[in-house]
Amino acid sequence: MELEGRAPQEADAPDTLGACAPARGFAVSEFQARLRAAQRLMADAGIDALLLTTEPDVRYFSGFQTLFWQSPTRPWFLIIPASGKPIAIIPEIGLVLMQSTWIEDIRTWAAPKPKDDGISLLIEALGALASGHGRLGIMKGHESQLRMPLGDYERLIAGLSGITVVDATGLVQSLRMVKSASEIEKIAHICEIASTSFAQAQSLFCAGQPLIEVFRKFRIACLTAGADDVPYLVGGAGQGGYRDVISPPSTRALKQGDILMLDTGAVFDGYFCDFDRNFALGPASDAARRTYDTLYRATDAGLSAARPGATCREVLGAMNAVIGGSGSDVGRMGHGLGMQLTEQPSMAAFDDTVLTEGMVVTLEPSMSFGDGQMMVHEENLVIQNGPPRLLSDRASSQIEVLQ
Amino acid sequence: MELEGRAPQEADAPDTLGACAPARGFAVSEFQARLRAAQRLMADAGIDALLLTTEPDVRYFSGFQTLFWQSPTRPWFLIIPASGKPIAIIPEIGLVLMQSTWIEDIRTWAAPKPKDDGISLLIEALGALASGHGRLGIMKGHESQLRMPLGDYERLIAGLSGITVVDATGLVQSLRMVKSASEIEKIAHICEIASTSFAQAQSLFCAGQPLIEVFRKFRIACLTAGADDVPYLVGGAGQGGYRDVISPPSTRALKQGDILMLDTGAVFDGYFCDFDRNFALGPASDAARRTYDTLYRATDAGLSAARPGATCREVLGAMNAVIGGSGSDVGRMGHGLGMQLTEQPSMAAFDDTVLTEGMVVTLEPSMSFGDGQMMVHEENLVIQNGPPRLLSDRASSQIEVLQ
Repeated sequence: MELEGRAPQEADAPDTLGACAPARGFAVSEFQARLRAAQRLMADAGIDALLLTTEPDVRYFSGFQTLFWQSPTRPWFLIIPASGKPIAIIPEIGLVLMQSTWIEDIRTWAAPKPKDDGISLLIEALGALASGHGRLGIMKGHESQLRMPLGDYERLIAGLSGITVVDATGLVQSLRMVKSASEIEKIAHICEIASTSFAQAQSLFCAGQPLIEVFRKFRIACLTAGADDVPYLVGGAGQGGYRDVISPPSTRALKQGDILMLDTGAVFDGYFCDFDRNFALGPASDAARRTYDTLYRATDAGLSAARPGATCREVLGAMNAVIGGSGSDVGRMGHGLGMQLTEQPSMAAFDDTVLTEGMVVTLEPSMSFGDGQMMVHEENLVIQNGPPRLLSDRASSQIEVLQ
Repeated sequence: MELEGRAPQEADAPDTLGACAPARGFAVSEFQARLRAAQRLMADAGIDALLLTTEPDVRYFSGFQTLFWQSPTRPWFLIIPASGKPIAIIPEIGLVLMQSTWIEDIRTWAAPKPKDDGISLLIEALGALASGHGRLGIMKGHESQLRMPLGDYERLIAGLSGITVVDATGLVQSLRMVKSASEIEKIAHICEIASTSFAQAQSLFCAGQPLIEVFRKFRIACLTAGADDVPYLVGGAGQGGYRDVISPPSTRALKQGDILMLDTGAVFDGYFCDFDRNFALGPASDAARRTYDTLYRATDAGLSAARPGATCREVLGAMNAVIGGSGSDVGRMGHGLGMQLTEQPSMAAFDDTVLTEGMVVTLEPSMSFGDGQMMVHEENLVIQNGPPRLLSDRASSQIEVLQ
């Protein structure tokens, strides 16, 4: 199997941590299949070219993977034509890495160049693909972003006279929502790494430890277990329960009577896990134990409902039936998972997406209790015929007590 | 000193790693000063309200800090009015954390809500601030992004009839470019952590080690030394030199005769370092040693040129005078540094920004050599009267050889 999406390598050496890890990158045939599927949908929608600007969208069709996107300075573009291979229009600094992917038509400029950061190259390429009265697909819907300066975008559109911009968000998201076997194995692997790390909680965390040290130890545990990176780690701790689930760690020390929650998005080969675990420092209060039990049963209900053919709204309904009216107001109780920490679809009342085999999603029921406290559970799973395949080791049925 | 920008905490515990660390967060007086400075520039430009959508821009004026931005699902908005405090328009899930900042006017909705993800709240708030023929400042220039769906932005503008959108990129960047003493101390601290980690190279890296393991060890070293996170780590290795500086690590093993480069953006309290180091596995070739020496002297020339009153173009010129015509084509040789890995200004021919006291920048000369190899050096510094203050421990004057 020819693997792509990586810089040229000399001989591969054994990766001591990677003995059981899936192969990195993807076979060219996988990119070919993604392209064919996109071009079929483009033909149905009468779209002459797709313009992609974000890291996951560009990576999905090219295999181009780099942390260099952390720098906001330079835009990167990938064009999907109605037929033929994608065209990369990228800063010169990315040429060598892009050449290592399956992409052949690579056009570069010496970015940054504020007066023309790829715009004239885009106008030339898109003008040829969708001339006159053509239709250009752009990601402009829910959960999308335009990763280029808005002023540059306006100049691009002004330079493409006669072309109609259409929203291609649903088209691209419908493809990315359903994962291939290779994608699922990468997500499964990083879920296993995070499960292994959470399983070390008794030796990692203890009363007296500042929360920021809890976070540090957990990050190191994930890296040591084989994660490439831990881009997302949030959580909270408080007496009888936490009140917030998105804060960075404070320097407050854990103490007896706290409930601690850690929620992690670690990464392997560009694919995320996203699940949390709750711990009690010493015996938990009745209220916390009751809440934990309710959320555990809500997750079970979600797992029972998560079948091909069910809608996201129905899965939400199954969880809400257990929780009752006291669900907290975070807008949804689960979501897609893959190259991004959160992806389409949403386990939400507004989302009628029908689950199909190969979708990787989280179930994330949450509820308020006590005096402004809240609790969140989360598991990662693959939709398949019959019961879903759990990728995260199921949380214990009762809250784990740290001694 | 009252510190803000953090979730409510109970008693602070000693952070064993943080004994010498700067205090987290900022005094309210710092946010007040940022706001006053912005409102002065807004008055000069006749701007009635600024709409901010990205993590660093929102954080700069509010102190709102969370990794939750990793999820692309929900947009977050901060409005800077012509007078009075900022107004936060954010998903409900961020309410508790935003309440812990100095912001008082916080308006929320139960996001995600694809049909109205904050747009009606924005129209109401902005309509009141800039009614009729008002002027709304938006970030739409070089290095900016609009972090909300483009379709939502179009609906927002359509809902604000009569209002003129003006580009506020320069206004906000001119403020963020010049760092306060507290910001500089955070950057200095993370630079020290990365310097400490690079100083362990002899014990961390060795021949036979897969590059991916080199990266893993370095991340863990940074975390152990006190980094909150290592969002950026790129590099390369190859016989006699590397060919690419933005790749993720391969599983190829380091071997004698390699040149290894690691470039890291680690983070403390939301502020980045960004510098690299080069290492030789065994004695380096003459070509690599000559290149190293040239880049070392180019950095020296940049350090001599980086004075208040000099332009970025002049600093670039000083480095290029040493390198000659063989500089590689990556568009610039240094940049601003702070809440983002790369910020304004750019050490580039197009950038006439005049350096002033308090700017934190990188000098990053690079050149090609041999048969398609390249080398990059990088240091972090503060512009001040007289010679700049180096924040990174200066690289050794000759390439360090790993035994």
